[in-house]
Amino acid sequence: MYKDEQLDEEKVFKDPVHRYIHVKDRVIWDLIGTAEFQRLRRIKQLGTSFLTFHGAEHSRFNHSLGVYEIVRRILFNFDGRPHWNKDQRLLCLCAALLHDLGHGPFSHTFEKVFKLDHEAFTRQIVLGDTEINYILRRVEEDFPQKVADVINKTYEDKLVVSLISSQIDADRMDYLQRDAYFTGVSYGHFDMERILRVMRPLEDQVVIKQSGMHAVEDYIMSRYQMYWQVYFHPVSRSAEVILTKILHRAKELYETGYQFSLKPTHFISFFSEKNAVEDYLKLDESIVLYYFQMWIDETDPILSDLCVRFINRRLFKYVEFNPNAQMKEWMDLYQLFQKVGINPQYYLVDDSSSDLPYDFYRPGEEGERLPIHLLMPNQELKELSRQSDIVESISGKKRTDHKLYFPMDFIEALPDDQPEKSEIKAILGLS
Amino acid sequence: MYKDEQLDEEKVFKDPVHRYIHVKDRVIWDLIGTAEFQRLRRIKQLGTSFLTFHGAEHSRFNHSLGVYEIVRRILFNFDGRPHWNKDQRLLCLCAALLHDLGHGPFSHTFEKVFKLDHEAFTRQIVLGDTEINYILRRVEEDFPQKVADVINKTYEDKLVVSLISSQIDADRMDYLQRDAYFTGVSYGHFDMERILRVMRPLEDQVVIKQSGMHAVEDYIMSRYQMYWQVYFHPVSRSAEVILTKILHRAKELYETGYQFSLKPTHFISFFSEKNAVEDYLKLDESIVLYYFQMWIDETDPILSDLCVRFINRRLFKYVEFNPNAQMKEWMDLYQLFQKVGINPQYYLVDDSSSDLPYDFYRPGEEGERLPIHLLMPNQELKELSRQSDIVESISGKKRTDHKLYFPMDFIEALPDDQPEKSEIKAILGLS
Amino acid sequence: MYKDEQLDEEKVFKDPVHRYIHVKDRVIWDLIGTAEFQRLRRIKQLGTSFLTFHGAEHSRFNHSLGVYEIVRRILFNFDGRPHWNKDQRLLCLCAALLHDLGHGPFSHTFEKVFKLDHEAFTRQIVLGDTEINYILRRVEEDFPQKVADVINKTYEDKLVVSLISSQIDADRMDYLQRDAYFTGVSYGHFDMERILRVMRPLEDQVVIKQSGMHAVEDYIMSRYQMYWQVYFHPVSRSAEVILTKILHRAKELYETGYQFSLKPTHFISFFSEKNAVEDYLKLDESIVLYYFQMWIDETDPILSDLCVRFINRRLFKYVEFNPNAQMKEWMDLYQLFQKVGINPQYYLVDDSSSDLPYDFYRPGEEGERLPIHLLMPNQELKELSRQSDIVESISGKKRTDHKLYFPMDFIEALPDDQPEKSEIKAILGLS
Amino acid sequence: MYKDEQLDEEKVFKDPVHRYIHVKDRVIWDLIGTAEFQRLRRIKQLGTSFLTFHGAEHSRFNHSLGVYEIVRRILFNFDGRPHWNKDQRLLCLCAALLHDLGHGPFSHTFEKVFKLDHEAFTRQIVLGDTEINYILRRVEEDFPQKVADVINKTYEDKLVVSLISSQIDADRMDYLQRDAYFTGVSYGHFDMERILRVMRPLEDQVVIKQSGMHAVEDYIMSRYQMYWQVYFHPVSRSAEVILTKILHRAKELYETGYQFSLKPTHFISFFSEKNAVEDYLKLDESIVLYYFQMWIDETDPILSDLCVRFINRRLFKYVEFNPNAQMKEWMDLYQLFQKVGINPQYYLVDDSSSDLPYDFYRPGEEGERLPIHLLMPNQELKELSRQSDIVESISGKKRTDHKLYFPMDFIEALPDDQPEKSEIKAILGLS
Repeated sequence: MYKDEQLDEEKVFKDPVHRYIHVKDRVIWDLIGTAEFQRLRRIKQLGTSFLTFHGAEHSRFNHSLGVYEIVRRILFNFDGRPHWNKDQRLLCLCAALLHDLGHGPFSHTFEKVFKLDHEAFTRQIVLGDTEINYILRRVEEDFPQKVADVINKTYEDKLVVSLISSQIDADRMDYLQRDAYFTGVSYGHFDMERILRVMRPLEDQVVIKQSGMHAVEDYIMSRYQMYWQVYFHPVSRSAEVILTKILHRAKELYETGYQFSLKPTHFISFFSEKNAVEDYLKLDESIVLYYFQMWIDETDPILSDLCVRFINRRLFKYVEFNPNAQMKEWMDLYQLFQKVGINPQYYLVDDSSSDLPYDFYRPGEEGERLPIHLLMPNQELKELSRQSDIVESISGKKRTDHKLYFPMDFIEALPDDQPEKSEIKAILGLS
Repeated sequence: MYKDEQLDEEKVFKDPVHRYIHVKDRVIWDLIGTAEFQRLRRIKQLGTSFLTFHGAEHSRFNHSLGVYEIVRRILFNFDGRPHWNKDQRLLCLCAALLHDLGHGPFSHTFEKVFKLDHEAFTRQIVLGDTEINYILRRVEEDFPQKVADVINKTYEDKLVVSLISSQIDADRMDYLQRDAYFTGVSYGHFDMERILRVMRPLEDQVVIKQSGMHAVEDYIMSRYQMYWQVYFHPVSRSAEVILTKILHRAKELYETGYQFSLKPTHFISFFSEKNAVEDYLKLDESIVLYYFQMWIDETDPILSDLCVRFINRRLFKYVEFNPNAQMKEWMDLYQLFQKVGINPQYYLVDDSSSDLPYDFYRPGEEGERLPIHLLMPNQELKELSRQSDIVESISGKKRTDHKLYFPMDFIEALPDDQPEKSEIKAILGLS
Repeated sequence: MYKDEQLDEEKVFKDPVHRYIHVKDRVIWDLIGTAEFQRLRRIKQLGTSFLTFHGAEHSRFNHSLGVYEIVRRILFNFDGRPHWNKDQRLLCLCAALLHDLGHGPFSHTFEKVFKLDHEAFTRQIVLGDTEINYILRRVEEDFPQKVADVINKTYEDKLVVSLISSQIDADRMDYLQRDAYFTGVSYGHFDMERILRVMRPLEDQVVIKQSGMHAVEDYIMSRYQMYWQVYFHPVSRSAEVILTKILHRAKELYETGYQFSLKPTHFISFFSEKNAVEDYLKLDESIVLYYFQMWIDETDPILSDLCVRFINRRLFKYVEFNPNAQMKEWMDLYQLFQKVGINPQYYLVDDSSSDLPYDFYRPGEEGERLPIHLLMPNQELKELSRQSDIVESISGKKRTDHKLYFPMDFIEALPDDQPEKSEIKAILGLS
Repeated sequence: MYKDEQLDEEKVFKDPVHRYIHVKDRVIWDLIGTAEFQRLRRIKQLGTSFLTFHGAEHSRFNHSLGVYEIVRRILFNFDGRPHWNKDQRLLCLCAALLHDLGHGPFSHTFEKVFKLDHEAFTRQIVLGDTEINYILRRVEEDFPQKVADVINKTYEDKLVVSLISSQIDADRMDYLQRDAYFTGVSYGHFDMERILRVMRPLEDQVVIKQSGMHAVEDYIMSRYQMYWQVYFHPVSRSAEVILTKILHRAKELYETGYQFSLKPTHFISFFSEKNAVEDYLKLDESIVLYYFQMWIDETDPILSDLCVRFINRRLFKYVEFNPNAQMKEWMDLYQLFQKVGINPQYYLVDDSSSDLPYDFYRPGEEGERLPIHLLMPNQELKELSRQSDIVESISGKKRTDHKLYFPMDFIEALPDDQPEKSEIKAILGLS
């Protein structure tokens, strides 16, 4: 049977984070070979972060293999334990491998601008007319649906879901270590081997033996540091701001009938809110970068300027600024920008990032993830933040960072005797 | 003076290989910010190797900063030593940073197909009407020429040249470590800190104190292993073979008047052997990957098929094969391929790689690099291979690997009763 | 002048934690060569921890070089900055190198049992008739006193003191990394290079630029984890408990006129509370282990048994137990042990460890260390826990762990029908 | 049955080299707990190397666990393969764990001076009246003999022997990596995980799949570098020379009836060539260091001086010198030393180290180890040096380094007008 088929000889991928990634199942090997999975090579794991951390050029292909490998190792440890149903093994591996399949170029930004949902795309790719679907159907007819359900977190066996999406899942364990490795930062390290050894399957979730609590604390702190040191780095966000504005501008031009020298074929599905999955699959970062380079020569000065900025890393500067708390300054700035002819809609951008490093359970809230449970020596379960002072201290506390982005070079280029120049600088706190 | 200008505060780049890259000179900072240098972010350091080692997605931008940093550290150690002329410092740093500026997408393959020379392009970029040139000229009028001369190895001060191009230069020391880091292989490590400590400037070259000989041996062996384990990996070469054939096919189609659905604008300068630097600067890997994805829909079946293969990693299989030694088999295969309708010009490709791991001096040969000299306690110089058994053993010995590449899927798809199928398989040694 | 004398060629020590330790000053080189400093090779950095973490066999010699190297790097960065007085350089280096000179074998335990003070011994070694003193006096007459004052934290220049003893000093930065390296745990890593780059000298302390706050958070968390995962590991504490009891027993026997087969010559100074520094310098872990091995053959059964346990790692088991909260059980146990003939004075031992991971300033309390101050962009100073949620969460909170240690084998060896056996097991919660 | 008994829960040791060492077999757990095995904690893996590389303070206990762990991993991979007999598993693990049991303090030197053989002691410990023997006999009556035979390389199943003693055995793979880790040198790294994956059991040996050849080359080169950079470091050899001379002197004094202030009880068995195993087991490095410190106060000036040198690291200096080739100078020096009253028997010592980095098979020679065989795709075996240029280059070539050691301080202390002083310096090439 195809679902049980093993390769003649185990294949290994050399991986800098997990040393080797091991593949023995034919199904996994075939999935890796599909066009849809290979496309992940052309999408960076960390979007614009490579403009801050030059090492961060690794792709989602890399990360997807890593998540698969971690789940493979977890299941190796689960083998033979109570509560663990071996028949779920292939499903877990496939869901792990494919969980990011629906990501597009500069995912986060694209989703925000075009109101896309990468998880919906993942489902469509798994269930639609794709090479991925063809392989999964060979396993069994309803296997694609099962894989989609696991990724979608609606699968009935919550233990399976928790391997892929929880507050300590294979996804997070891979990306923290991988992103730390490629950026070179010293955060992001924790003792994964120890965590894997203390994970235990229960009916509806994976729990952690109490003796492993400190390793989990270390993991939570790593995550916290990675968010603020890497993922929310203000320079990467500056590049994201510009990216957002390029897409907004192109859409606006398209809607207002602007004649592009290069027709934005690949984008039309999204400009027109059709968002077809077959168009989505044709998008990747090489396509996007091609258009941005072409658009440098467009006659629209805003589109052209923003593309130059993105391609040549001429980023916006930033200051601390919370528009809600500083409404007056915000409105003044907006008007001053208009007065001096710098379109504030594109050149005065507030951006905020916030993170909830660990959350205890708040039933009914959207997007909640199950808390981490410790398995005490007496077999009771205790929620992590009740046992750990450190986790308790950051638990449930959302931290937000507000910044205001703008093109310093445009402001500097204003004549010194133009009064708005110094007014703008005064509000922004620039000397 | 611009040439001596220092940044108010030292800037650092987090680098996974060298921990931090330090920039204090305004000139260096400005060069990094140019469009021509930023373009190196869109060119992978290892071309097609990411299809074998998925971590190898790092760019030449990464590597260029690394070479700069190594030279910076070498010069820090040279400071105050005899033979070292401090006035050469900025020149060395600029040449280190810019030495790869002329590389294009999938450089090696492009150069071979279109008979380009990346060093010539580097010169044109340094000397032409570019942002790089503008900055270098601000240092002094003939500074661009000096930088070009150093990179070109024609600069009069051979000590300066040897920092950038010798058998143990900053270029090699960076790429070995960096490529090992990103691929994750365990080769490529050596004690660079020790080598830097034992480097000494002499009149016309950098030499190594004899006490550091073993560290240099280790470096030479690392290089040897990296060549055979990574750089010449047969799977990466399979992707290169396909890349080569795509470019050949596109050129052939262009020359024969084929009507492309997507006009190959970016390639025309090269198809027509004009090779203008301004066209070259517009090429990067995102552009190339855009075209390859578009060409999948071209009506020419060969171009389309080869592009599918490259984009979706459907690579050619290979066997050991030396066409010179197996001329008869080669001709038979060629005819068999023709008979069954698989164009051998595109689908039967021999490829050979060879490496000279270390070379003693053979005057008059082209491309020779100076041998490594050890500085003995009595101040004599000895050529490395005379002191080291290991280096002697691989010195001057060229090793060559011949492989024959072909599309296994095409052969398998032939009907089993077609006699050529088994004849082909027999010659190729396939069961 | 001796104080300025430089070695002809820099000497380096290969160090697994800092790569290389660099020595250029003749004074430092000479200090390393003294008998008193070499003695630190025979004293383990982590006392009994090697019985839990087999890698933890490194000596205080190792650590002392590491602290010196960190201070050397800090001062390299301070060079030329305001508030930094170059004349203090050699003093800082010497104090860093020598700060642990007064440690003896299994320091912590010895100090507790014999009421010693390793800092007092350090002072005596620095000021007394020693090779160390001879060298320091060659620098200048009052140099030994200065070094002693810095180590003693009474030196007038508080900036100098804070390099060696504060909440983020070179001592802590070395031991966290070094102990993590040798034990192999994944805690203990933080970005020291970054911390060194953001340290700034002020009048009376070293402060940290605000941009480095996250690196400091990471350091504080590393320390927290190392305390609970390594330094207070209950198995190492079991070995310490036994060690303590051996020393107590030997002293008691000495005081009561027991005739040792091997006269405890090396210990008499401490048994008799004379505590002479010349006797102290003759003690090291090889001496102690010699006696313990000899004492296995003593006729006193308690001394002999405890020495067997220590030498052959037959440690006490432990349970959670807080004698203050469980006074009744404690007294019951004590009497039960007496009844069955297991001397509770030596075989029923409560031990508690507590740690204050970070402390804000509480004036007037003994032993307080200055809090860490951040230097804000506006040059204001802010105390760390006011800026960092994580540090705030653990700041000023003492955490204590109570355990009760006992010889499980002795209890198991009691006859099953002896009622006290099950009573003891019931109180200890053993099934 | 005891031999199959498994621990309730797997025990792990944190190991810096292999991350974790896993123990599930009760027999292994019990062996680790014996007095004879715990004794290995008091014997350094690298003898005097810690006086050159301060990190090299790790014990043979460390290494023995590491060798066990590597064999455990190899056998995990062998499970289910042809030629592999599962019943040999426990035997292999025990032999791996215990292979170094017979090492004493500063093993190499002790063996040379007292003509001991650590392998004979291992046998005596395994077969004699020891805790180790008691446990092994519980497995089965002739199990101790089997373990001794494997360690002794006389066991009939040569496949089992080759895991522990061959040119690529678990012993070497552990010590190279471990010694590199603790010294901090950058040599000693190779891809062990890859080597383990390509090892295959055959009837009478372990072979390596040809695809793993480069990993093996890397291992051979690591070994070569470790020998010359670490194991034969001339400074460590200086300490060994002094150690040798201390033991010689003490023996000579004993034989000539010298009255020691401290009777050398622990050494008498060896001075008198009785070499009893029960006396051997009482020796460890703490005992030896105790005596050396005591002997500093002996009245014999040579013994006292040599002990001061060893304890306080006042080592001999060295020059390149081959007594065979420089017989005349050697004799002159000898006489000059005598003339000026420096006893050449103790203070003028030639020492040579030689290494055979890899050896092809030379039947009949003593001490030969089987060469490494590659398993070719066609199932043929090829000897490694026939396939690898690099290995061929160093194969069968013995390299020898000769040095002459002497106390520079004694020579410097001679009056300048004493003609012998300058004659000695002239011969030694000292300026």
